Amino acid sequence: MPLRRARRSAAEEAALKDYILRPDPADPHLTRQVAGVDQDGVPVETAVVMERPLTLFLNGQEIVTMMTIGDHPDLLAVGYLLNQNMLRPDDEITAVEHDEELELVVVRTARETDYEDKLKKKTRTSGCAQGTVFGDVMEKFEDARLSQDAVLRTSWLYALSRKINTTPSLYLEAGAIHGCVLCHQDRPLVYMEDVGRHNAVDKIAGYMFLNKVAPEDKIFYTTGRLTSEMVIKTVQMGIPILASRSGFTAWGVDLARQAGLTLIGRAKGKRFVALAGEERILFDADPAAVGEEDPKHQRKGSRA
Amino acid sequence: MPLRRARRSAAEEAALKDYILRPDPADPHLTRQVAGVDQDGVPVETAVVMERPLTLFLNGQEIVTMMTIGDHPDLLAVGYLLNQNMLRPDDEITAVEHDEELELVVVRTARETDYEDKLKKKTRTSGCAQGTVFGDVMEKFEDARLSQDAVLRTSWLYALSRKINTTPSLYLEAGAIHGCVLCHQDRPLVYMEDVGRHNAVDKIAGYMFLNKVAPEDKIFYTTGRLTSEMVIKTVQMGIPILASRSGFTAWGVDLARQAGLTLIGRAKGKRFVALAGEERILFDADPAAVGEEDPKHQRKGSRA
Repeated sequence: MPLRRARRSAAEEAALKDYILRPDPADPHLTRQVAGVDQDGVPVETAVVMERPLTLFLNGQEIVTMMTIGDHPDLLAVGYLLNQNMLRPDDEITAVEHDEELELVVVRTARETDYEDKLKKKTRTSGCAQGTVFGDVMEKFEDARLSQDAVLRTSWLYALSRKINTTPSLYLEAGAIHGCVLCHQDRPLVYMEDVGRHNAVDKIAGYMFLNKVAPEDKIFYTTGRLTSEMVIKTVQMGIPILASRSGFTAWGVDLARQAGLTLIGRAKGKRFVALAGEERILFDADPAAVGEEDPKHQRKGSRA
Repeated sequence: MPLRRARRSAAEEAALKDYILRPDPADPHLTRQVAGVDQDGVPVETAVVMERPLTLFLNGQEIVTMMTIGDHPDLLAVGYLLNQNMLRPDDEITAVEHDEELELVVVRTARETDYEDKLKKKTRTSGCAQGTVFGDVMEKFEDARLSQDAVLRTSWLYALSRKINTTPSLYLEAGAIHGCVLCHQDRPLVYMEDVGRHNAVDKIAGYMFLNKVAPEDKIFYTTGRLTSEMVIKTVQMGIPILASRSGFTAWGVDLARQAGLTLIGRAKGKRFVALAGEERILFDADPAAVGEEDPKHQRKGSRA
């Protein structure tokens, strides 16, 4: 069934040119039309997001089975291994093999990997479901140094919010999905979505690794909450600024302050709150000129 | 710092009497005031949700460390063990001991438990972070039988949405939190919140077990997405109807149909969509009379 297409303004069309990678809501693999009934008991068809298992192997060792929308198995695999410290930044990846039929992805490295030690030490993180970080992720977190030169202009933040909220996405098509966007200044570069927010983050980490993207001057935007897990992953990726439409948890704030991460939440329309790393913010925009958010762009996230 | 109090209407006051248990946003243990800056660079103080570790033991064996807001460690502990099938419905709990200082909770049972076998078989579920279900949870899911006599009147659904959205909560106070509500007809009975949605569900499961609440005539309401994990847990709890403001995933819909669960999503204002178990719905309300949702009650969740 063809998707409805909203008419885009010239500004919205131009904004889409910023992206290197962005969601493809028209991809028939990513949603399915499902029949049901609406509030009047009238039969309706509606799009729902697909999720499929993907089993990850590292050099012949099975690591985990993930549920994912399945659009970038290679990026997800590499990013997952990086964010769990099972791959080191200087590891050389010799191959990433994806078998769609068998629903598996294999990452091969030149050097032997020491993932087995990682699997022994686990800590639950907060987040919507049951996040886990392994022992030395927290150790690495404590050693992380973020760029002191990085700047966030509030004009960039407003431009990013506007562009990201109007970008065609699975969220706009079917809902029930998380999004993360790697940004540079006022340009969104790589926009990933997935049923699990951790997957969306991991795909961006995989993209950055495979494309040797420098993190120091980047901004990370997420549609979800600023939990400990999001803060840990952003710091681990070396990105100094994390922004979200959604709200904060106390541990997320504590960790951001500890790492010197700029943490911005409840960013909607003209409003936002920064609870860590405020010194990187350059207030160059007039919030009054931004105004309130257009209700049609409202999505998940807490009220300010 | 005292919390701002919104003036409640008489109808809202009356609705609060439905609850056996509901959030206590004024509890100083659950939020913390944090200093930051707003969009104008002006210093602000804002409430953020606390999260703290809680290590769960079953009969002297350490099971897991959870991050939780910490309001009902006993319910969370029992519910977690039930929903992971580490406790059986006929297990007798002899004690639940909580040590606030040591941040641990111990559940003791009369009979020896067989959790060790469970820990061997894991499947990742979808959800915001990394949900896990153990092997025999899926086996039990396949054997589950839900009540065929259960009914959902649309007038109940509208009343529940209205009451739940106006109930004082940590969500309204600080955002960045999930909520789940056990309901009977048009009455919300037990409303739990937590940083992880799985914790909110588990606290309700613990409440039902410890208070011998029959599930067959209940309705489960969640603020979050209708993922595989939510469907599995609702079916496992024996509740025949699951409703949410938020959207669906394809696997969640598939599992609901397989189990015969009534699955209602995108329930906002007069709107909703049912994608499974529509036969339990009795369309006794006029949606036009319900109208659109008051914008001040909009919260997370996908657009319909």
